[in-house]
Amino acid sequence: MMAVRQRARSEQDKAQRRAALLRAAYSLALEQGVREVTLAAITVAAGLDPSGLRRYFDSREDLLLELAESGWMGWRERLCSDLDQARHRSAAQLAQSIAASLAADPVFCDLLTHVPLSLEDGVRVERARQYKTRSFEAYDAMCAAIAAASDEVGVDEAQIVLAATLGLAAYLWQVSHPSPTLAALYEQVPRWGHAALSFEPRLVQLLTALFIGVTH
Amino acid sequence: MMAVRQRARSEQDKAQRRAALLRAAYSLALEQGVREVTLAAITVAAGLDPSGLRRYFDSREDLLLELAESGWMGWRERLCSDLDQARHRSAAQLAQSIAASLAADPVFCDLLTHVPLSLEDGVRVERARQYKTRSFEAYDAMCAAIAAASDEVGVDEAQIVLAATLGLAAYLWQVSHPSPTLAALYEQVPRWGHAALSFEPRLVQLLTALFIGVTH
Repeated sequence: MMAVRQRARSEQDKAQRRAALLRAAYSLALEQGVREVTLAAITVAAGLDPSGLRRYFDSREDLLLELAESGWMGWRERLCSDLDQARHRSAAQLAQSIAASLAADPVFCDLLTHVPLSLEDGVRVERARQYKTRSFEAYDAMCAAIAAASDEVGVDEAQIVLAATLGLAAYLWQVSHPSPTLAALYEQVPRWGHAALSFEPRLVQLLTALFIGVTH
Repeated sequence: MMAVRQRARSEQDKAQRRAALLRAAYSLALEQGVREVTLAAITVAAGLDPSGLRRYFDSREDLLLELAESGWMGWRERLCSDLDQARHRSAAQLAQSIAASLAADPVFCDLLTHVPLSLEDGVRVERARQYKTRSFEAYDAMCAAIAAASDEVGVDEAQIVLAATLGLAAYLWQVSHPSPTLAALYEQVPRWGHAALSFEPRLVQLLTALFIGVTH
């Protein structure tokens, strides 16, 4: 009995520490960008001893992939609740719903570059499988919600546009968050800044064109 | 007279060594992916002493940004010569020309992720300015060539699609070049592989839809 309670207590502690590490990583990524986030900074911010980190996550990639997985769950929840009961949505309205539901989680937008570049490749195969399974579940649910909300967009067309969204959002997020040096350059040459510094409106423009194009 | 000759000789040597470093970096990036390329490996492959590297490039970012700059020049040359004298090109034909001219330089496709993520941000402002100037010159020339080859696509529409191309190509290149672990997973779950392992056909599909959408 005592042993069971102790194990339960220890499982609960472990879950709390994992959650604290994920929260710390999210805050650091929001502040500095995903690229700059180190495991050492995460453990310090979570108030844990670095030597114990491996009890909770295999690696930096493992931890950040978990953030990306949560990002998919949150995106799905926002988009599906926005489109719940919606009908006859136009291409522009669908584009706005997708872009707004993504823009609400800037760390997820940043992670979209890092997932195929280094995170998925840097974890054990079973971890990658779990990520793929959960992200595809979210993707399928969102595609079904988009198709249900539109008279013209079917599930196949929604899949094409939502897959393209990942690439467009990943790229637009990186170019719209330049370093201070590059930001100074954009002030000097407004055309360059105009091309770079616009995440949500540009995503809406491109997704609207894609919805029109795939249903034409 | 002697001093002038010596200086000319030394300038020529320097240019040759820079070119050798760039060729070595290109080969390594083609083989291993841009992410894995280190300055140490580049200097070894070019047969130079690592201690002298700073005479040619400020940093890894500086060297790789030069490769990206050459990538823009090559892309422009391929696309503009393909579209030279072309008229009445359809959306699908324009998409094919853009995708094929990009796919011809896989290292440039890989670099498209790294430029906004780390390269532009990691160099001196004057170096970033030069990159921006030259890449925008290439972009403008390509947009003019696309508009001239089409009855429906104007320069404004070409600019929207070519900007989106950068993001789509960057993302599709990374997902279509998985690690061995991830590639094994794609063999186990064909749907995941199907979604990932298709660079040029998927780019053509998305660019065709975008051209139709922006001219609708």
